[in-house]
Amino acid sequence: MTDRISAIDPLPESKVPAWDLETDVIVVGFGAAGACAAIEASEQGADVTLLEVSSGSGGTSALSSSEIYMGGNGGTPAQRANGFEDTTEAMRDYLMMAGGPNADAAKVALYAEQSLAHYQWLTSQGMEFNTTFVAEKTIIHLTDDCLLFTGSEEAYPFNEAATPCPRGHKPKVEGDTGGPYLINILTEQVKKRAVDIHFDSRVRTLIRGAQRRIVGLVVREESKDRYVRARRGVVLCAGGFAMNQEMIKRYAPQFLRLGSDRAIGNPFDDGTGIRLGMGATGATTNMHEGFVSLPFYPPANFVKGILVNAQGQRFINEDCYHGRVGHFCLRQRDDTIYLVLDQDLYEKPNEYIGMTLAGTGETVAELEQELDLPEKSLQATLEVFNHHAAQGCDPLFGKNPKYIKALDQGSYAAFDCSIGKIYYPYFTLGGLDTLPTGEVLDSDQQIIPGLYAAGRNACGLPRTGAGYSSGMSIGDATFFGRQAGISAGNAVPHA
Amino acid sequence: MTDRISAIDPLPESKVPAWDLETDVIVVGFGAAGACAAIEASEQGADVTLLEVSSGSGGTSALSSSEIYMGGNGGTPAQRANGFEDTTEAMRDYLMMAGGPNADAAKVALYAEQSLAHYQWLTSQGMEFNTTFVAEKTIIHLTDDCLLFTGSEEAYPFNEAATPCPRGHKPKVEGDTGGPYLINILTEQVKKRAVDIHFDSRVRTLIRGAQRRIVGLVVREESKDRYVRARRGVVLCAGGFAMNQEMIKRYAPQFLRLGSDRAIGNPFDDGTGIRLGMGATGATTNMHEGFVSLPFYPPANFVKGILVNAQGQRFINEDCYHGRVGHFCLRQRDDTIYLVLDQDLYEKPNEYIGMTLAGTGETVAELEQELDLPEKSLQATLEVFNHHAAQGCDPLFGKNPKYIKALDQGSYAAFDCSIGKIYYPYFTLGGLDTLPTGEVLDSDQQIIPGLYAAGRNACGLPRTGAGYSSGMSIGDATFFGRQAGISAGNAVPHA
Repeated sequence: MTDRISAIDPLPESKVPAWDLETDVIVVGFGAAGACAAIEASEQGADVTLLEVSSGSGGTSALSSSEIYMGGNGGTPAQRANGFEDTTEAMRDYLMMAGGPNADAAKVALYAEQSLAHYQWLTSQGMEFNTTFVAEKTIIHLTDDCLLFTGSEEAYPFNEAATPCPRGHKPKVEGDTGGPYLINILTEQVKKRAVDIHFDSRVRTLIRGAQRRIVGLVVREESKDRYVRARRGVVLCAGGFAMNQEMIKRYAPQFLRLGSDRAIGNPFDDGTGIRLGMGATGATTNMHEGFVSLPFYPPANFVKGILVNAQGQRFINEDCYHGRVGHFCLRQRDDTIYLVLDQDLYEKPNEYIGMTLAGTGETVAELEQELDLPEKSLQATLEVFNHHAAQGCDPLFGKNPKYIKALDQGSYAAFDCSIGKIYYPYFTLGGLDTLPTGEVLDSDQQIIPGLYAAGRNACGLPRTGAGYSSGMSIGDATFFGRQAGISAGNAVPHA
Repeated sequence: MTDRISAIDPLPESKVPAWDLETDVIVVGFGAAGACAAIEASEQGADVTLLEVSSGSGGTSALSSSEIYMGGNGGTPAQRANGFEDTTEAMRDYLMMAGGPNADAAKVALYAEQSLAHYQWLTSQGMEFNTTFVAEKTIIHLTDDCLLFTGSEEAYPFNEAATPCPRGHKPKVEGDTGGPYLINILTEQVKKRAVDIHFDSRVRTLIRGAQRRIVGLVVREESKDRYVRARRGVVLCAGGFAMNQEMIKRYAPQFLRLGSDRAIGNPFDDGTGIRLGMGATGATTNMHEGFVSLPFYPPANFVKGILVNAQGQRFINEDCYHGRVGHFCLRQRDDTIYLVLDQDLYEKPNEYIGMTLAGTGETVAELEQELDLPEKSLQATLEVFNHHAAQGCDPLFGKNPKYIKALDQGSYAAFDCSIGKIYYPYFTLGGLDTLPTGEVLDSDQQIIPGLYAAGRNACGLPRTGAGYSSGMSIGDATFFGRQAGISAGNAVPHA
């Protein structure tokens, strides 16, 4: 490796001194995507080597709640048990709107069509789901109940694009322990199969043969470089780049405002896998997009309050998904965001997000003054809002009537939700551009032979914070991890 | 070339049958950046080959007004003649804010420090500038006057970050003919030197030698592939990707809303140069950013009107640069944008942008109803605006007092500035990540030997529509085109 200039540039196969190991499929990363890729590649009869940079399985999937976005096809058992006859079309329409202007129609179609089959596959691996429904608007529930609305399905404009249906499925575990539960199950399934697992194994560079084909990689194990050959393919499942501030600056600089300590992920979400793919001439897409949340509820009643910016203006229907709310908070010109409540709605907020009281007032004018908002600005906003709220509607932002009430009871209070002051967690959504099969494309949309990607190493189903729903990431990682494993496992071995 | 999978992937030097041509520096693209690179490389004593895909020089620079953003250093002649003693520090501070969260501090510092020297270089090539100042707010003036405010220097928040100073310099030509004027001068300068110019010459792929070094390229001329060796370097100056809707979708999908016919550029702004650089493991940055304009003025009085969105809310200080206005228009949740005027301000708009009357009213309530805005929304906005305007201030958005007047004279009218309905021109600002020297970086921030980029093939000084000023593109293209030419011309030839 002495003549290498950059780890990002693939090593030519001609420079490989000798193969230390040969396998059919190499999977990089042992989170949910990598585990599913390894399981499925093995199911195709392929020899699989699974490389993980840390000392155990899990990745960022283990840090999640493991809600999984599923439905369509007449409904999952939990949906049907609660009277939701979800259609594949409604699920597809929702996901297309959620994906924004660069939604991937082919991925969305496949995911929606096979969502019930994916549910069955997950349960066949050992996952269990109750069939109970949580009706109250919340972010993470701590019971072992299953189904809930985890996105903006009931919120404008999504509720006009597709019949609303809850599709977030939490596995049958108490507390916020879904991630470890999922990972334990997938890890056991991987171990049951002929998968050669290497922990503490750091990929240094890909190896490239004739015609741009990725034929293996160089991995650092026990302070030595090992040359590993992949006869059928390399599957990159090494996560996003939330933990790499240099990449955040280059690709998604709007998140710099949130602070590096707000990034969600494990320390290895440093974009290495994405950069390895780029070095192999893989194209990226939606690198400027990410999930960012303002988790201002529960209590669910807070959704009946209004969010205002530094101009005292509303800017979003407050009942949409907290990630969509966060996305629009970050779009405001200044960093100031307040949650305004009247006496009816006021209660103590959840402690973990760090919202503090920014001001109170017997009247809106008093509150406005205390918040140092421009004179008359908040008063005008509330006058307009209350005028329509009295009729149960919100013609400005289309808030769902079930969360509309006039803010006119007694005194007023505002919590400070300003950027930089409270907890706005974020992670990245951009990654390598792939086909639904997991095959990585270059910027001419040509397939790079032998290279696959899934999970946040790729740009998958969730593509913008404006349309994110909880359960999309694990749904995408498990489903498209499987597709990549199937594709690589069935690929024709190179000579 | 029969065994090539993708033109994006560089051809290994070992596959070159024979060099058809050898030179020191190859410059790709004969717009302003490429011309300046060729001139300076030649000045270093290098043999230069300049390849242009079309049949003549000019590129997109020829379509511009050729305003050039210059100042600092106590002022250019035009600045000093009009009493503007511009400081390098003020120019740097302005450019840093204009560059947004991913501003390039090294490029900004060099550009500001050498801006007066660059003015002198341009005049030494034959450009002439008057020393007259155009005080009225306009977009393009048709006289041969020189200096004007071409950005948001006088607008909040820029006016708080740096002492406002006009830095847009239009060359001494009548009409909107600055682009051809500039290109004629640069073309003559190129022709005076030992530069081998090839028109109708299409680059197919870069050629890569040992250690990732770019050693030449394959170019298609007269239906034949020719292998051209560059001993010192290849400089990519082949423009942005505004004309490539596939790339727009992948990298900057928000512009899809504007329609492909709104893209500004020449048909070869298809991102080829950027993709060639990516194939050579060059990293890109700010690919999601672009210039987008709502050229709603002149007449300058329209700036005293207010712009409102589908919620009847203001969202920007209307006196900032029209590109910043456009950027914020595109950020609104819906596509509806109106320019609201009172009787004092009403006049016929400029025809070319296609603004039509959307509604009128004897009262604000009538106008609101005619525009189908939510009841009371526009009324509340005007009540707040007029309340402060009567005191000459705009505490919501910080509009400059010289453009503030209460909208309370007689009847009201609104022009339709909605996205999709009127002319919102745009072009891209993202490109290859380079050092101020023009050297292209990979995603590990390592230099790719032998590869340089400038103009919109790189991500330069202008990095976001939120901070764009007219004159930044030609300023950047000419200045950093020169730097790339100097660097490549002085590079140590490879073996």
